[in-house]
Amino acid sequence: MNILIKNASVLFFTEENGYIEETSIGIEKGIIKHIGKIPNDFNYEKVIDGKDKLAMPGLINTHTHLPMSLLRNYADDMPLWKWLTEKVWPIENKLTKEDIYWGTMLSIAELIMSGVTCFNDMYTFADTIAKATASTKIRGNISHTLFDKTRNDNLNFKTTRSLYEKWHKSNNDRIRIFIGPHAPYTCSEDYLKVITNLAKELETGIHIHLSESLQEIEHISKTYGKTPVKLLDDIGLFDVRTLAAHCVHLTEEDLDILMKKNVHVLYNPTSNLKLANGFAPIDKMIKRKINISLGTDGSCSNNNLNMFEEINLAAILNKGITKDSTLIPAIEAVKMATINGAKALGIDDKVGSIEIGKCADIILLDLNKPHLYPKYNLISSIVYSAQSSDVDTVIVDGNILMENRKLTTIDLEEVIKHVKLSSKRLIKQMH
Amino acid sequence: MNILIKNASVLFFTEENGYIEETSIGIEKGIIKHIGKIPNDFNYEKVIDGKDKLAMPGLINTHTHLPMSLLRNYADDMPLWKWLTEKVWPIENKLTKEDIYWGTMLSIAELIMSGVTCFNDMYTFADTIAKATASTKIRGNISHTLFDKTRNDNLNFKTTRSLYEKWHKSNNDRIRIFIGPHAPYTCSEDYLKVITNLAKELETGIHIHLSESLQEIEHISKTYGKTPVKLLDDIGLFDVRTLAAHCVHLTEEDLDILMKKNVHVLYNPTSNLKLANGFAPIDKMIKRKINISLGTDGSCSNNNLNMFEEINLAAILNKGITKDSTLIPAIEAVKMATINGAKALGIDDKVGSIEIGKCADIILLDLNKPHLYPKYNLISSIVYSAQSSDVDTVIVDGNILMENRKLTTIDLEEVIKHVKLSSKRLIKQMH
Ligand SMILES: [Zn+2]
Ligand SMILES: [Zn+2]
Repeated sequence: MNILIKNASVLFFTEENGYIEETSIGIEKGIIKHIGKIPNDFNYEKVIDGKDKLAMPGLINTHTHLPMSLLRNYADDMPLWKWLTEKVWPIENKLTKEDIYWGTMLSIAELIMSGVTCFNDMYTFADTIAKATASTKIRGNISHTLFDKTRNDNLNFKTTRSLYEKWHKSNNDRIRIFIGPHAPYTCSEDYLKVITNLAKELETGIHIHLSESLQEIEHISKTYGKTPVKLLDDIGLFDVRTLAAHCVHLTEEDLDILMKKNVHVLYNPTSNLKLANGFAPIDKMIKRKINISLGTDGSCSNNNLNMFEEINLAAILNKGITKDSTLIPAIEAVKMATINGAKALGIDDKVGSIEIGKCADIILLDLNKPHLYPKYNLISSIVYSAQSSDVDTVIVDGNILMENRKLTTIDLEEVIKHVKLSSKRLIKQMH
Repeated sequence: MNILIKNASVLFFTEENGYIEETSIGIEKGIIKHIGKIPNDFNYEKVIDGKDKLAMPGLINTHTHLPMSLLRNYADDMPLWKWLTEKVWPIENKLTKEDIYWGTMLSIAELIMSGVTCFNDMYTFADTIAKATASTKIRGNISHTLFDKTRNDNLNFKTTRSLYEKWHKSNNDRIRIFIGPHAPYTCSEDYLKVITNLAKELETGIHIHLSESLQEIEHISKTYGKTPVKLLDDIGLFDVRTLAAHCVHLTEEDLDILMKKNVHVLYNPTSNLKLANGFAPIDKMIKRKINISLGTDGSCSNNNLNMFEEINLAAILNKGITKDSTLIPAIEAVKMATINGAKALGIDDKVGSIEIGKCADIILLDLNKPHLYPKYNLISSIVYSAQSSDVDTVIVDGNILMENRKLTTIDLEEVIKHVKLSSKRLIKQMH
């Protein structure tokens, strides 16, 4: 379906002020074909009125565990270890494939309704996650979590290989498969080596948790006598495209390694605060031009998938930490949630910005809200004032997934019905 | 009008889990008359269906500068001094009484739409702010800002006195007037002394900025050889009910003084981060049982009036700072936004919680949203998952100010029309 978005403000990363008012976008077969002047012979089946709306690239949530929305608000405000061992892991063990499906559907509904057009996920039952991704037509980068404890099942990477064969670059290339070793403290050195080889063989990337907590740093230091970053570097893991979630506790040497090896940092400010892990040294990463993209982490440690909150927090938190009110200006925070995520995933040739030739992964914000007036600077509006509920329309790959806040590819009532059933059963099983 | 809220979940601060499901509230002449069992002879003109809704006390935003929403997103990401002297102060000087009115109306619309039923404001043209407060029927605590530089106008406190006489405890006691010395660095020692006497004479409280920035600490230290807190204590200002905004930079002695003198701390986490002032020592205040309530500060340094963001930030930020994931559990963050605010304002006998005999300042959250499922713990939902746009209905003093997200006392189109005119004129004048 060809679409004409008329008279919208449009956000660009090339313009000085970041956006142009009252302009148009022509989408042909899922591709952004025209911006500004629309040729007379452009045929379209659908017009979207852009008055009082801002068109911006769809948000890319680069660190999620989608099925965990089923555990949202199940347990909070506890010491990390007690929370994991007494609450999260026991209930996770009770999740069925059905639960995973409906939890993922709930998350995808939330993602779309908050302006996310692409996610980067890591969880078990990844095939089920891929199915939900395909049916809802969102863009998803999916990894099946690998642990040492489940290594027997994964010695030949049966699950990951079949996932890769079935889904990689499927659905008009909306779905891609990465390799998902959980973390340096849950995957042994030699396991990480074979994982690296697998990624090389499949010519895909690695999604891993890295240097998240002080406990991890201590554990790896005791076991290997080095930092988690140095460990992965010595293994050669960074020779593969690596997306490293968290990176909170880093030495200067770690930072230099991340820079040299072009590791992409997935920054999850809410999760890092909520789980009391602290603050990632974002200012030092910026100085090194390390690519930083934003993520929410799972709904169990956030407890939502709201990227507008992460954009805002990234911008203000780093000002507070460094006592520099100019650090992470608004436009940079927006980039962390869009083009930087696309760079991390290696799809910045396709998405992450509104440019002719790129896929139409576009969201429209409704600017006609009290908290968005006056309209002095729309980039500031996005970062410092906007709410996820301001997202009005979501387009992925040229498909309209939400219009006037109505989802088009998800039966929300059905999803909620199943989520209620699953959560009731889980609570019973936990007692 | 008598109102029956039927079958809602209702938040209490007395129950162990913080809320009761499927219960009812009967409101008679603005007062909460029944909770739970509603007597057969209770007459009501209005029923609100509470299915899938959470009734909670209205939020109290304890530090605002309402007219400043007119400057929202006008300038950001700048060094503090440059921002103030080159941007904020010059444009503030151009604000007319008309601007103040429409800016305030815009802010009140935003407050109501995000679940705020009571605010504590400090600004000039306070009479105009009071008018907007009266017409919209929100609850407001209002101070006229006092500076040394405007002292000639205020030597006999003409503006404050007439404000007090005209508005204090007016509109069914929804409006109260406090005294508003701007800060220790903008009001001289002797001026603060007469201000203290005025507050004593009028038997009202003081709303002041305190220990916000390192620049302030340095300035006061150079001028007086002590901290701002010690200065105000020595003046005797704390003998009056004092609401002190920010309190970011405190010594242990400062903290002890605030505790001993029952100073109420107005905590503005977003503003403190965004302006690069840093982190208030909330954990140390909690240890001393200092009353802490939440505020947004003006829309110029936030840039919205969204208390759900402050609740969330208070809960997660202090976990990250202290590396203690149990600090500020969800229910405490909710209290900071409700009953603690009422305590600060000295109106906790009237509002701040849902209790029989209190005024009906109640908001209803619509829980039927993807990001609010499952419903394991509604207190966690409020703090870690909810958005301001989840507020569905707002009742202040028994008057319904918003229902199904439609404002009843504000013509939003009219407000936005005037805000657009004002902002366009201001931009022209600034060029
Ligand atoms: Zn994670
Ligand atoms: Zn202030």
